[in-house]
Amino acid sequence: MRSGFKGKLYPVNPKESEIMGLRSYPSILDIPGGVDLVVVSVPASVVPQVMSECGQKGVKFAVVHSVGFSELGVRGRELENEMLQIAQRHGTRIIGPNCMGLYCPGVGLNTIVPRASLENEAGSIAFLGQSGWVSQSFIEMGYERGLRFSKVVSIGNQSDLTIEDLLEYLAADVETKIIACYIEGIKHGRKFLQLAKQISRRKPIIVWKAGRTEVGIRAAASHTGALAGNDAVFSAVLKQGGAITAQNLEELIDLVVGFTCPVLPLGNRLGVLVESGAGAVASADACETLGLEIPILPMETQQELAYAVQGIIPAFPNRQNPIDIVWVPPEHSARIFLLCSRIILNDVDAALVMAYTKLDEYFATELVGIRDEMEKPIFFISCDSTMQQTGVSLLSKKGIPTFTTPERALKVLSAMVHYSNYLRQNDG
Amino acid sequence: MRSGFKGKLYPVNPKESEIMGLRSYPSILDIPGGVDLVVVSVPASVVPQVMSECGQKGVKFAVVHSVGFSELGVRGRELENEMLQIAQRHGTRIIGPNCMGLYCPGVGLNTIVPRASLENEAGSIAFLGQSGWVSQSFIEMGYERGLRFSKVVSIGNQSDLTIEDLLEYLAADVETKIIACYIEGIKHGRKFLQLAKQISRRKPIIVWKAGRTEVGIRAAASHTGALAGNDAVFSAVLKQGGAITAQNLEELIDLVVGFTCPVLPLGNRLGVLVESGAGAVASADACETLGLEIPILPMETQQELAYAVQGIIPAFPNRQNPIDIVWVPPEHSARIFLLCSRIILNDVDAALVMAYTKLDEYFATELVGIRDEMEKPIFFISCDSTMQQTGVSLLSKKGIPTFTTPERALKVLSAMVHYSNYLRQNDG
Repeated sequence: MRSGFKGKLYPVNPKESEIMGLRSYPSILDIPGGVDLVVVSVPASVVPQVMSECGQKGVKFAVVHSVGFSELGVRGRELENEMLQIAQRHGTRIIGPNCMGLYCPGVGLNTIVPRASLENEAGSIAFLGQSGWVSQSFIEMGYERGLRFSKVVSIGNQSDLTIEDLLEYLAADVETKIIACYIEGIKHGRKFLQLAKQISRRKPIIVWKAGRTEVGIRAAASHTGALAGNDAVFSAVLKQGGAITAQNLEELIDLVVGFTCPVLPLGNRLGVLVESGAGAVASADACETLGLEIPILPMETQQELAYAVQGIIPAFPNRQNPIDIVWVPPEHSARIFLLCSRIILNDVDAALVMAYTKLDEYFATELVGIRDEMEKPIFFISCDSTMQQTGVSLLSKKGIPTFTTPERALKVLSAMVHYSNYLRQNDG
Repeated sequence: MRSGFKGKLYPVNPKESEIMGLRSYPSILDIPGGVDLVVVSVPASVVPQVMSECGQKGVKFAVVHSVGFSELGVRGRELENEMLQIAQRHGTRIIGPNCMGLYCPGVGLNTIVPRASLENEAGSIAFLGQSGWVSQSFIEMGYERGLRFSKVVSIGNQSDLTIEDLLEYLAADVETKIIACYIEGIKHGRKFLQLAKQISRRKPIIVWKAGRTEVGIRAAASHTGALAGNDAVFSAVLKQGGAITAQNLEELIDLVVGFTCPVLPLGNRLGVLVESGAGAVASADACETLGLEIPILPMETQQELAYAVQGIIPAFPNRQNPIDIVWVPPEHSARIFLLCSRIILNDVDAALVMAYTKLDEYFATELVGIRDEMEKPIFFISCDSTMQQTGVSLLSKKGIPTFTTPERALKVLSAMVHYSNYLRQNDG
């Protein structure tokens, strides 16, 4: 918190007079002036007392990190209820317990990521997660992929503020354009469905629902006290609500990266332009499984492509689609891939480009220009798997979603086609 | 080549007298003394003449990078045959054309990876690939995961030396312990099956077969001139041959990382020990889909676990399996996870450990000790997703396969259980 938070911090600890150079107070009641948020990191048994002090002080919100509540079963549930009743009496709202709390880089508020190097650069991605690990990893792995965040909330046991409450808040939050969630169990199914339906028409909601299997449900119960419930029912709720579903953390991040693209594909016809033959084969295999089509391009388009690369590449074995450029000398790479991307986008709904091209500001800006002119998504795979992390983040930040492998990119494109269909079917 | 190769290099170019500070020769015939290997990077039309010079010089092997052969169809096939006939007349063996060639770090031979920072550290992983991108990415992405290589061959059109020839070589190669392949099409199905059966009893063969779908087959034909053939038939060949199959590049690398573990699981009963509740839920979900079991541990084992963490962690919500430790103070982390790993391995066939523990030499060595004593695999997931790349590579290098997410680790463990069953069923 000290590295970014612009407001005032008051450590509270009955045994210390100073903590990390800040004056420490014996109790919340001793803090001078009002308090907006209390971050509670004390043993579970002391939490009710802390909550009582919060109430007397008129604190509006508390993040309760402490574990040892409803996730432990009956006895813990009693303690959680005790804490909650005290809070409700005074009007204090609680996030948690058994949670990591908040990451709101816009105001430098961060109780989740213990990482000094993470810059407090705000963005438009929100995340709600019933897991500290998922919340933290979503931020860290997403950050490296170019994602920037509006609000991240690790919600824990949802004793007071539930995922539905927070969804309602994020629906109205102008900073938030995409909402991602990790959910083990929901408490108010009907409300969730209603909210999802409303929100998904304006903002994509991407959900990793865990606790899908018998043992998974047992594990979820002891993790966040969640009643994971029937997976088939929840899947139907998500589908009906227009939510996009992920099966794991990487897929969740991939999907969010994809949806940062400001345009949706209007159909499932894809142009695949590669500098690797195996990339073409892998893309074709994946498309067939995912319901995406790689149509053979009209002869004029093929001729246009041949004309564009004339004199640059020695052989052009396949320009039907997938289009295999084989290899372009580095000095021509950016120009050729930009030119060819524009040509093929005339005939398809979206393009997947896979190249060794250097991912610099020029290339990124030009690709963005083509995407905006054609109003069609362009997804990018860097053939140079390990050396362009800065470039990958650069492209994704500009809404040219970038991935390691064609399969991962295509899975996301397929989800975008479905979402696009959902929006058209539920429009008006 | 100049950064690592210990032998002598002779550039050949009729127009230059010096290349990169080395004396250049007008023709292969002008090189003083014998030549072991010629790397051919000239336009396709000139290749037959170069091959003829190789023959006259008595060159044993040539890597032909050039494109414009059978991958272009009939006309290219004629040129490829012409090149081949010349080579066969003189006994020169060819890798390629349309390939990236060789990476043999043991002798500093590298025509694949244009990366100075890749150290010439040899290992026991071999790779055969019908793709330059896959060969290069397999090396680069695998290297970061801790894999080290014996021989990597980008085989291209397989005009002369085929994947079957190279498999035969790698079967006998003492440096090679695991063989990974990217295959678009095989030329000698029966021989492949026979070889796979022989080899897979001693060394795991892990195959990503691409060109599985209609469009994929079309793309493969124009990529390496491969007749991808019927996927169902090839899948049956792979299964019967005891090969392990991957669906994409990341899965291929994950599987190889997994098989560096020197012991195989003797059954499908898994212990899951986590510092993240969501990790437990995600693992449980994945296991059910993958046919792995997470059995409830005997009461004595649960008590042993409780005793081990007493006084260290405030709550222990689930010690049945998956075992959720919730959070361990960093100073106790390594000790607690080592202790608990050993305890649970008594009752299961393999362990998945997911923790925030610092991945240092001490922790790695101790985990290896437990694995060797118990003769059971230990897989590791670092909860700290982005900050421990060195540690991840350290653990994997010692045969404690390490992954980003539980789902990816468990997919590999499931493949190892199948392989282990295959070996027992085909033993004697």
